[in-house]
Amino acid sequence: MPNPTAAMLVIGDEILSGRTRDANMHYLAQELTKHGIRLSEVRIVPDNHDAIVGAVQALSAGYDTVFTSGGIGPTHDDITAEAVADAFAVPIGIRDDARAILQAHYDRQGSTLNEARLRMARIPEGASLIDNPVSAAPGFTLHNVHVMAGVPTVFQTMVASVLPTLTGGAPMLSQSLRIARGEGDIAGPLGKLATAHPEVEIGSYPFIKDGVYGANIVVRSPDGAAIDAVIHELAALFPEAQ
Amino acid sequence: MPNPTAAMLVIGDEILSGRTRDANMHYLAQELTKHGIRLSEVRIVPDNHDAIVGAVQALSAGYDTVFTSGGIGPTHDDITAEAVADAFAVPIGIRDDARAILQAHYDRQGSTLNEARLRMARIPEGASLIDNPVSAAPGFTLHNVHVMAGVPTVFQTMVASVLPTLTGGAPMLSQSLRIARGEGDIAGPLGKLATAHPEVEIGSYPFIKDGVYGANIVVRSPDGAAIDAVIHELAALFPEAQ
Repeated sequence: MPNPTAAMLVIGDEILSGRTRDANMHYLAQELTKHGIRLSEVRIVPDNHDAIVGAVQALSAGYDTVFTSGGIGPTHDDITAEAVADAFAVPIGIRDDARAILQAHYDRQGSTLNEARLRMARIPEGASLIDNPVSAAPGFTLHNVHVMAGVPTVFQTMVASVLPTLTGGAPMLSQSLRIARGEGDIAGPLGKLATAHPEVEIGSYPFIKDGVYGANIVVRSPDGAAIDAVIHELAALFPEAQ
Repeated sequence: MPNPTAAMLVIGDEILSGRTRDANMHYLAQELTKHGIRLSEVRIVPDNHDAIVGAVQALSAGYDTVFTSGGIGPTHDDITAEAVADAFAVPIGIRDDARAILQAHYDRQGSTLNEARLRMARIPEGASLIDNPVSAAPGFTLHNVHVMAGVPTVFQTMVASVLPTLTGGAPMLSQSLRIARGEGDIAGPLGKLATAHPEVEIGSYPFIKDGVYGANIVVRSPDGAAIDAVIHELAALFPEAQ
């Protein structure tokens, strides 16, 4: 059975402007791989209602699971919850359980649940909440879309609480061989090896380091023995590999 | 006049699997911002023909310019050139000028232009070549799509040769203020400020650092004086800001 698929939608002007570098995508990619779920597409869109709606609809229809990151805070540019509700044409409003979670949190902190913070209790109809042990404001799951915070520490705890609820496949294993020769020298034999072994995926990732051309050859499969066998053949083809 | 828009398509299983972290997107985002071009969407797809074709078509139709990264080397998993040709329904074949560039390069190196390397001379009909001073194998531009290498040093030199050919807008300037208060305390006044100043974009990017909640407030516009004025108001609203 093929592994379940996932997509990620990163919402954030600050990443598209080059001001900050996204960290959540790389984290999620690694976690999904461990869990046997194949991250099949990532999109990054700005804090723009229509862009978010369109991407949520496309990704939700195209993949088993979707994770979003960013735009669920209390400020004017946090528009993800409304956009996800609109993507599924469901109403959104303040929900009592979300409000209670926030109220308890701000009571403990000695701050007030003001109008801005109350926006974080707006949850689309039919969604279930995702726990946020870091800063209380919950994420939510609507259909196959998990809506999570952009702050990396919060994102990571939300991923940790969502992942066990998903059906994973066999974890995708991989092994790599570093070959300090130009890809052009490797490509012929490597292509034949890939054709002979459709049970694994073979990728070649070239690098140029200190003027030396090389490639990391990565063999991927849920089947560790299949990987071992191909790596063995690969090492025999390229005895200089490390 | 609004700034021209761009999209980026990153092609690479290795990024989606979490094995490597993309560096090209962050680089391109910064370069485009300097050049006054607004990076409006990024997609990351695997080394899959249909996924690349679909993304190229969608992004090419949706934005002024598209940049792709990855998949133009000599190995079996390098399928970007064919996919881009198919996206525009044009034939692809070995082109004499591209072959001559490769031949000269490998002659200098004392290596041979073998069958695998010759694949890098396959250029879609109607495309123009993008110079690659690092490792010779050219990128190409077809319609509004610039097809570039994934190796960061090569990607960067290709961006450097493509950017001057594009019409930029006024460079997007930005200034930020760091406020060590929870976004919930900032959100109300900040939202009013954003409504009062539609001539700038105001983004709030929260962080949690050593248990302290805060946000970086970023004000963006091509107009430096407009930014200064808003930052001034912002600093008056939040005297504790840095």
